[in-house]
Amino acid sequence: MKDFNIAVIPGDGIGKEVVSEAVRVLETAAELHGGLTFHFTHYPWNCDYYLEHGVMMPEDGLDRLKTHDAIFLGAVGDPNKVPDHISLWGLLIHIRRSFEQVVNIRPAKHIKGVRSPLRDPKDFDFIVVRENSEGEYSESGGRIHQGGDQIAVQNAVFTKKGTRRAMDYAFMLAEKRRRHVTSATKSNGIVHSMPFWDEVFQETAQDYPHINTRKVHIDALAAFLVSQPEAFDVIVASNLFGDILTDIGAAIMGSIGIAPSANINLNGKYPSMFEPVHGSAPDIAGKGIANPIGQMWTAKMMLDHFGENELGDQLLSAMESVLESGIKTPDLGGKATTKEVTEAVISKLKNSF
Amino acid sequence: MKDFNIAVIPGDGIGKEVVSEAVRVLETAAELHGGLTFHFTHYPWNCDYYLEHGVMMPEDGLDRLKTHDAIFLGAVGDPNKVPDHISLWGLLIHIRRSFEQVVNIRPAKHIKGVRSPLRDPKDFDFIVVRENSEGEYSESGGRIHQGGDQIAVQNAVFTKKGTRRAMDYAFMLAEKRRRHVTSATKSNGIVHSMPFWDEVFQETAQDYPHINTRKVHIDALAAFLVSQPEAFDVIVASNLFGDILTDIGAAIMGSIGIAPSANINLNGKYPSMFEPVHGSAPDIAGKGIANPIGQMWTAKMMLDHFGENELGDQLLSAMESVLESGIKTPDLGGKATTKEVTEAVISKLKNSF
Ligand SMILES: CC(C)[C@H](C(=O)O)[C@@H](O)C(=O)O
Ligand SMILES: CC(C)[C@H](C(=O)O)[C@@H](O)C(=O)O
Repeated sequence: MKDFNIAVIPGDGIGKEVVSEAVRVLETAAELHGGLTFHFTHYPWNCDYYLEHGVMMPEDGLDRLKTHDAIFLGAVGDPNKVPDHISLWGLLIHIRRSFEQVVNIRPAKHIKGVRSPLRDPKDFDFIVVRENSEGEYSESGGRIHQGGDQIAVQNAVFTKKGTRRAMDYAFMLAEKRRRHVTSATKSNGIVHSMPFWDEVFQETAQDYPHINTRKVHIDALAAFLVSQPEAFDVIVASNLFGDILTDIGAAIMGSIGIAPSANINLNGKYPSMFEPVHGSAPDIAGKGIANPIGQMWTAKMMLDHFGENELGDQLLSAMESVLESGIKTPDLGGKATTKEVTEAVISKLKNSF
Repeated sequence: MKDFNIAVIPGDGIGKEVVSEAVRVLETAAELHGGLTFHFTHYPWNCDYYLEHGVMMPEDGLDRLKTHDAIFLGAVGDPNKVPDHISLWGLLIHIRRSFEQVVNIRPAKHIKGVRSPLRDPKDFDFIVVRENSEGEYSESGGRIHQGGDQIAVQNAVFTKKGTRRAMDYAFMLAEKRRRHVTSATKSNGIVHSMPFWDEVFQETAQDYPHINTRKVHIDALAAFLVSQPEAFDVIVASNLFGDILTDIGAAIMGSIGIAPSANINLNGKYPSMFEPVHGSAPDIAGKGIANPIGQMWTAKMMLDHFGENELGDQLLSAMESVLESGIKTPDLGGKATTKEVTEAVISKLKNSF
C-alpha cells in the first residue's frame, strides 16, 4: 500500500470549484487502484485570507506544506480583491521559489473532443520545460529619477546552474519521448542573457548525442506553434518564454481550461506543486460551470510524479473520451456543469478497470 | 510634383530578390499617380559586404542614409556567413537606434486569398505599435564568474520618455481606427519594468478619454491572438513583446512572407525605415520563388508615410485581388514565381487607375 500526503490549496475563484472535483476523481482513482491511499489536507490560503490576515499564508505556512508529498493547487489571485503582485508573489511564486521548484512542465496535445482554433491541428503533442526559478522573473531591479525622467530597470538573471538543470531535465524527458529538444532563444536581439542560454544549450546537447536539437528564436517559435505545432517534441525555455509558449499551447488545444502544469522540485528536499494553467476566473466563479478538466489533467501529472503513470494514463483517457462524447462545459461549447463532467469522468474511469 | 529620395538596402538572401520587384511596383505606382517621383539609391550593405570589409556598412554609412527621405530595406542576416549579433546589430538595429526610429508598426489583417492556419479567422485587423528603442533589447548587462558558477545578467531599461512616446503613438493611431488600445504587460511576473509600463499606460490613457483601453498579460495576449484576434485594434507593446506578437500576427495571416513593418522616426531628424517582417531565407534564395508581397506591403506603408494613403490603399487592394485570384508563391500554396506575382500586381494596379 502506497500512501501520499497531499496539501490542497484551492485558492481563489473557480480554483475552489475545480479542486474539490479533482479531489473526488483522485479518491476514486485510488480506490479503483486498490494499492494507493491519499491523505488530503486543505489550506484555505487565498485573497480572502489575505483580506482577513494581511498575508497570503501564515508564517509557518511553508513549514506545514513541507511535510507533504505534493501540493495540489487550484488558482491564485483575484485582482478585484488583492493586487496580483501581492497574491501571486505571496503564495504561488513564493512556493515555487522557496520549495526550489526549478522547472515547470506543461504538455500540450491535440485532444479530439475539443475544438482547436487551428484549421488543421494534426496530432501535435509537445511539452514545454520552463525554467522556473530565475531569468526574467527576478526581484532584482528598481527605478531612478522622478516624473518625466523616470527610468525602470529590470534585471534578468541567468545562472549556469539554473539554466543547465532545466536543460538536463528537458533532454532526459526527450529520451522518454521522441528524442527532440527545441531551445527557445532570442540571442539575435537580447545580447547578454540569450547568447549565454545558447551556449549552455549547446554544451548540454553534447552530453546527449542521440537527441536531436534545434534552436528557434522566440518570435518565430511562437509563430510555429500556430503554423506547425506537430513539429515539436520537447521545448526548453526561460521563465518568461515558457510562460508565453505554454499559453499558446493551451490556446491551440482549444481552451486554457484544460491545460495542466507541474512545478517540479528536483533535489528531493521539498514537495512539487501541481496547478492548472488557467487562473481563478472570478467572472464565472460560483456558477458551477468551471471546466474541471485542467485540474484533473493536473491530477494526472501528480499521479505520474508519484510513479503511477498507468493510472495517470487511464485518467487522461477517461477525460478524453468524456470530451469526445460531447460532455463538456460552456467554455468548450458544451452545456454540462462542472459536476456533470466530473461524474462522467468518474464513470469512464470505473469502466476502464 | 512631389519628389522622394529613397535609400534602398536589399540586404541578404531573398531581400535582394523581393526589393527589386517592390521597387518596380513603386515606380509603376509613381507613374500612374502622375505627381510623384521616386529617386532610388542602392546601398549594397549585407553579410557579403561584411566578409569583404569587416563591417556591415562603411564608416560614413549613416551620413549617406541620412540624406534620404526614407530607407527601404529587404532583409539582413545570414548566419552561415556572419553571426546574427554582428549582422543585425551592425546594420538593422544600428539604423533603428541611430536614426531614433523609436516605434515599429506592424499591421496584421485577414487577407482573403491567403489560407490562415486559423479555422475561423473572422475579419481580424489589428496593428501592433512596438517600442523600438529600448526595453528588453539592451546592451546593458554582462557576465560574472566562470564555468559552473557563471551568471549572465541582462538589464531591460524602460524610460518614461521612451515608453510614453510609444503609447502616445498608439493612442493617436487608435483615433484614426476603432478607438481601442490594448497594452501588453506582464506586471504579475516581471515586477520592476512592467508595473512601470502599466503606470505609464494608465497615465497616457487619461489624456485620451475617448479611447477604450485594456491591459492583458503577454501570455494571455499571445493566446488571444490565436483564439480571438478580431477583438483587437491597436496593441502597444515593449520591444520584446512586440516582436513576439507581430510574428504571431504574421502566422495567423497565413505567412510571414506577407507581413510588413515600419520603423518610425518621430522627431523628423532622421529618415524612417521600412522592412518586411520576414528574414533573408537563405534556403530559398536565388530560386526566384520568394514571396514579394511582404516587401510590397512594406512599400504601401512607405507610401502612407509619405502621405500617399490613397495610392497605398490602391496598392494593397491590387495585392489582395492578386492573392484572391490564386496567383501566389509556393509558401502560400501557389505555383507562381516572384516575378509572376509582381507582374500580376502591376497589372491590377494599372487597372485600378
Ligand atoms: C532580427 C531581430 C533582431 C529582429 C527583432 O527582434 O527586432 C526581428 O525579429 C524583427 O522583429 O525585426
Ligand atoms: C500568474 C503568473 C505570475 C504566472 C506566471 O507567469 O508564471 C502564470 O502566468 C503562470 O504561467 O503560471
